[in-house]
Amino acid sequence: MKTRIYVTLKPGVLDPQGRAIHNALEGLGFDGIEGVRQGKLIELEHGADLSDEDCDAMCRKLLANTVIENYRIERG
Amino acid sequence: MKTRIYVTLKPGVLDPQGRAIHNALEGLGFDGIEGVRQGKLIELEHGADLSDEDCDAMCRKLLANTVIENYRIERG
Repeated sequence: MKTRIYVTLKPGVLDPQGRAIHNALEGLGFDGIEGVRQGKLIELEHGADLSDEDCDAMCRKLLANTVIENYRIERG
Repeated sequence: MKTRIYVTLKPGVLDPQGRAIHNALEGLGFDGIEGVRQGKLIELEHGADLSDEDCDAMCRKLLANTVIENYRIERG
């Protein structure tokens, strides 16, 4: 089974990587981009017995820095 | 408007970050994880006139290394 976890910076948190991508896109001539934010996509392969509680605990303990990041869990 | 781009390593490509996360999860006592892969989620804020062709060109030119990475574009 597969679970996907999306980790993104909270609104208002400075995103230097996103800023760098935005500048690079403009440098390549892609206009019309108003903002770029970069996050992480973590894909877990696991057995059937991985509970929602375990997924949440993984995010809070390791996968996301909940001070500055949000996380979203997508099962199956 | 918002467009999301998911960049992931191609199957078979070694993923040291994913491996490190997997080890750390096991170290925290989360058993049953068979594999971990980490990718990028890039969120673009833009005007209505950003074409599919432009999105694809951004991925091929900058956002993904198409030798080792796949990308998926999710509009709107």
